[in-house]
Amino acid sequence: MFLVTRRYRFSASHRLHAPQLSDAENRELYGKCNNPYGHGHNYVLDVSARGPLEDRSGRAVDVEALDRLVSREILDAFEHRNLNAEVEAFRHVVPTSENLGMEIWRRLRSNWTATFPAAWPRLEKIRIAETPRNIFEVRANENE
Amino acid sequence: MFLVTRRYRFSASHRLHAPQLSDAENRELYGKCNNPYGHGHNYVLDVSARGPLEDRSGRAVDVEALDRLVSREILDAFEHRNLNAEVEAFRHVVPTSENLGMEIWRRLRSNWTATFPAAWPRLEKIRIAETPRNIFEVRANENE
Amino acid sequence: MFLVTRRYRFSASHRLHAPQLSDAENRELYGKCNNPYGHGHNYVLDVSARGPLEDRSGRAVDVEALDRLVSREILDAFEHRNLNAEVEAFRHVVPTSENLGMEIWRRLRSNWTATFPAAWPRLEKIRIAETPRNIFEVRANENE
Amino acid sequence: MFLVTRRYRFSASHRLHAPQLSDAENRELYGKCNNPYGHGHNYVLDVSARGPLEDRSGRAVDVEALDRLVSREILDAFEHRNLNAEVEAFRHVVPTSENLGMEIWRRLRSNWTATFPAAWPRLEKIRIAETPRNIFEVRANENE
Amino acid sequence: MFLVTRRYRFSASHRLHAPQLSDAENRELYGKCNNPYGHGHNYVLDVSARGPLEDRSGRAVDVEALDRLVSREILDAFEHRNLNAEVEAFRHVVPTSENLGMEIWRRLRSNWTATFPAAWPRLEKIRIAETPRNIFEVRANENE
Amino acid sequence: MFLVTRRYRFSASHRLHAPQLSDAENRELYGKCNNPYGHGHNYVLDVSARGPLEDRSGRAVDVEALDRLVSREILDAFEHRNLNAEVEAFRHVVPTSENLGMEIWRRLRSNWTATFPAAWPRLEKIRIAETPRNIFEVRANENE
Repeated sequence: MFLVTRRYRFSASHRLHAPQLSDAENRELYGKCNNPYGHGHNYVLDVSARGPLEDRSGRAVDVEALDRLVSREILDAFEHRNLNAEVEAFRHVVPTSENLGMEIWRRLRSNWTATFPAAWPRLEKIRIAETPRNIFEVRANENE
Repeated sequence: MFLVTRRYRFSASHRLHAPQLSDAENRELYGKCNNPYGHGHNYVLDVSARGPLEDRSGRAVDVEALDRLVSREILDAFEHRNLNAEVEAFRHVVPTSENLGMEIWRRLRSNWTATFPAAWPRLEKIRIAETPRNIFEVRANENE
Repeated sequence: MFLVTRRYRFSASHRLHAPQLSDAENRELYGKCNNPYGHGHNYVLDVSARGPLEDRSGRAVDVEALDRLVSREILDAFEHRNLNAEVEAFRHVVPTSENLGMEIWRRLRSNWTATFPAAWPRLEKIRIAETPRNIFEVRANENE
Repeated sequence: MFLVTRRYRFSASHRLHAPQLSDAENRELYGKCNNPYGHGHNYVLDVSARGPLEDRSGRAVDVEALDRLVSREILDAFEHRNLNAEVEAFRHVVPTSENLGMEIWRRLRSNWTATFPAAWPRLEKIRIAETPRNIFEVRANENE
Repeated sequence: MFLVTRRYRFSASHRLHAPQLSDAENRELYGKCNNPYGHGHNYVLDVSARGPLEDRSGRAVDVEALDRLVSREILDAFEHRNLNAEVEAFRHVVPTSENLGMEIWRRLRSNWTATFPAAWPRLEKIRIAETPRNIFEVRANENE
Repeated sequence: MFLVTRRYRFSASHRLHAPQLSDAENRELYGKCNNPYGHGHNYVLDVSARGPLEDRSGRAVDVEALDRLVSREILDAFEHRNLNAEVEAFRHVVPTSENLGMEIWRRLRSNWTATFPAAWPRLEKIRIAETPRNIFEVRANENE
């Protein structure tokens, strides 16, 4: 069994503002991240899949297939975007890195079998670094 | 003589859109960076000052004074901001990293003597990394 | 469930010398780390907490509260300190990175509930990089 | 219990070519990695061992002993080598990073007890970064 | 005036062997880098161009044009290649990083005017990191 | 002409305390760096030499000779040392990174000709990173 991780990057902007809270509560809760004009980050996304060696190729994951999946479902949707304004999932959900992580997880999960129809590899975890100091992980089993 | 460099970070969002150009020209010129909702980056700013050793302290630059200058003039103004909407200098100037570099240079230059009234240290260069792959430098002599 | 990691840094000095061993045994065991005048490192500390999404904030961990805890219990005590001479826990215990990790773990554990009184988030692991080549992790379950 | 990780580096070249496949199948499967003249990488290898604190030393792993093991079994064999031509294990096995990881794992496993004859520390995982974007992990329990 | 730097990566293999020297002299001169089967690196290439702000775009360098130049002249030729066997310039010249730097410099110089026909930007320097510890720079004025 | 840079690392401790100043002045000047028990850093040292291509080897700098020079004059003297107590040059001089840089520069300069007796390569600059945020450079011409 191998854990294979592939790193991707995208730049996006967001504003932390929970629609069900008042302006004052939002300012209290999110501080400068609640700035109405938004701010942005260079996100670093690591996608990790687990699987046994495939005998024919000597590989555990078809990395080109993974790249196509991530490009189509994640990078095309988020790269150089305003997450609040341009991603449907964040119209009514605050785009914290936790919620961004869940959205990425859902997109990869729901398209995984079409990309990897065999029993393996399986999506094991994703890791989002909003900055080098702030890191968020979502793992299989805990979220399904 | 020593060159002393100090590193700072700030996250901000921007949109590349030149007001004197048509929408079609802007899309052609800036591509995805012209996205009307903006996007963002974790900017890394290096400020370099040159000077001789100061005998009393064994230092060439009073780093605490430099930190106060950069915090007040740069970080307080740009950190977690939308550069187009919230920084006066970019109301009518497109916030490319080159123009951002010039704005940072001007702010440091015009407040330098108040912070460092002696002949030394002098502001030598600034370096902005928009991403690890895109780096912009502004140097003294070339811009004064 | 999310794993949220936050990175901190501090610089400190230490000397590896076990009080119950002879000088010769200490030199044999610790080599250049036993140098009587000590040496130092830029330590990088990652603190990881696990928890479910809190509905109101869309976050799993109150990062500001975590920062206050780490600043008060860890950074204020270790930053720019000589670990042997200035940290009570290392008066009679050799400040290897393993023992430093346990001391950090104990300080965070014993103040965790005061900072995070709800069932979640829980302290999951800490990771100390003494240098980029030497990394030490302490995890929950294994040390309680 | 501690997890102690130590980082090593080596530069090597390889060619991905599965001997049981036709030239056309190899080109299809490995793309530019099938280039008959080979190419190369700066591999980064992290070796992680788990164990309790040893009371006498205040350490969990004798890092010098680990260094000697890795130097002798891994670095001496792979550093500045052509993996296909100079490592026996890859004469008939394609040197993907997965197979490279398994070969490193086998070498460390089969020499572990001679280096660490006590119950602890145990080899927990190895991690190979072929490039900063392509990372492969092999863990105990899953491969024994 | 701005200095704009753009970072590229390629993986390649090489062998240091000077054709005009004997086998013994080569072994003496290049040590393990003379290994007849070659070895490899993940090269990091920084290309720096200098120029004034172009008023219309607010940029100093058309980065997309630079990317096309570097892709066509450098990455297509070196990525996943054996430098000795597959790059004409190294058939009779030893592919040290110095010679690799000069070859990259010549390729960029001789195609620069076709890509950037105006007076600016000008190619200022290239920097090749063979590993994070070994760095080579070629600058304008010194090599023309 | 090439600029060749080689990176080295050492860990050391120091205390900033100027002997000609009072305790109060030292505390005021150096803050927490004046802590009487000292603290420490993982220093990163880059040594850069300039020279033309040597025809026989295709190299500009004999890196093995440079390594021997730096090991003997710098690393053996500073690695795992307390700079104040164990380095003669800092008995009466405060070991700021500026003074540390000058001491390294002097040691390399005074032994350069013995190591590199030909006209080239010449020592061009050294760069010391005390932490990733604090960087000090010393250059030829400015200090001779």
